[in-house]
Amino acid sequence: MKITTMEDLFAHDLQDLRSAEVQLVEALPKMAAAASNSELKRAFTQHLKQTENHVARLDAALKQIGKGPGREKCKGMQGLIEEGESAIEDVTSPDILDAALIGAAQRVEHYEIAGYGTARAHAEVLGMKDMVDLLQTTLDEEGEANKLLTQLADGRLAIGINERAAAGSR
Amino acid sequence: MKITTMEDLFAHDLQDLRSAEVQLVEALPKMAAAASNSELKRAFTQHLKQTENHVARLDAALKQIGKGPGREKCKGMQGLIEEGESAIEDVTSPDILDAALIGAAQRVEHYEIAGYGTARAHAEVLGMKDMVDLLQTTLDEEGEANKLLTQLADGRLAIGINERAAAGSR
Repeated sequence: MKITTMEDLFAHDLQDLRSAEVQLVEALPKMAAAASNSELKRAFTQHLKQTENHVARLDAALKQIGKGPGREKCKGMQGLIEEGESAIEDVTSPDILDAALIGAAQRVEHYEIAGYGTARAHAEVLGMKDMVDLLQTTLDEEGEANKLLTQLADGRLAIGINERAAAGSR
Repeated sequence: MKITTMEDLFAHDLQDLRSAEVQLVEALPKMAAAASNSELKRAFTQHLKQTENHVARLDAALKQIGKGPGREKCKGMQGLIEEGESAIEDVTSPDILDAALIGAAQRVEHYEIAGYGTARAHAEVLGMKDMVDLLQTTLDEEGEANKLLTQLADGRLAIGINERAAAGSR
């Protein structure tokens, strides 16, 4: 697809994010199944529901600008999910796997924070106020999801997953 | 490579980041060549020098823990770079391409922020103070690089690249 205007670029932003979120809807149940820590399992399951909402929001946004979902697969998210799958294959201890899954999930959240931040900035210069608000809503949820993962890792909420993983190594 | 201890996971963190940075050393000159805005070109060129330093820091860190560079290619960064290459192919207007390159580069920076943040957290629970400091130094530089890209996009430094891209579309 050739991109010749800022409107084209914005449509591509939305389609790329939609592909990323759809891939994540498939990956999150596998991550929840692979996690041992109950708080982490719950975080992945809750984020799955949010992610399904994010797809619906992007569909609404695309409809509003007269575009379909697009056919290109988001290669960025594809690579990030492959990294998570490698962790599930390579890490043999449940506690260490929890720490590795958090690392993989935070890469995913940061991808989405960058992607939604970029799309929002493009909507701003296009003067599309409704789109800015819609994208900001999802951006806030991705930021919260990332913060929760940091808290689970470093133990601000309970026994830190990283601390437990390190203790098991001793 | 099987990962059975937190030390193994940390070694994998460093090797994955090293592969990511090495791929970025190859990609940044292409991004600088594709950019039209002189400030953006300079940002990519300056970040190339930093990125070469980041590889050297990771090599020193790996040597300290008795590990080599590893052989696995970081799939996360591979996907992000492919996205940047697609933009260079698909975007036909120089101003719009600058806006697209910023979006691709911020995805890269966020990947590295997540990756270094995770590795630093793992070094902390392993009690490796020197490693925490070394990783924090790079993490700060990635954060600054990301901030500079936002400023170039939204025009806090000069005429915003996004605004110019949108103006060309009208």
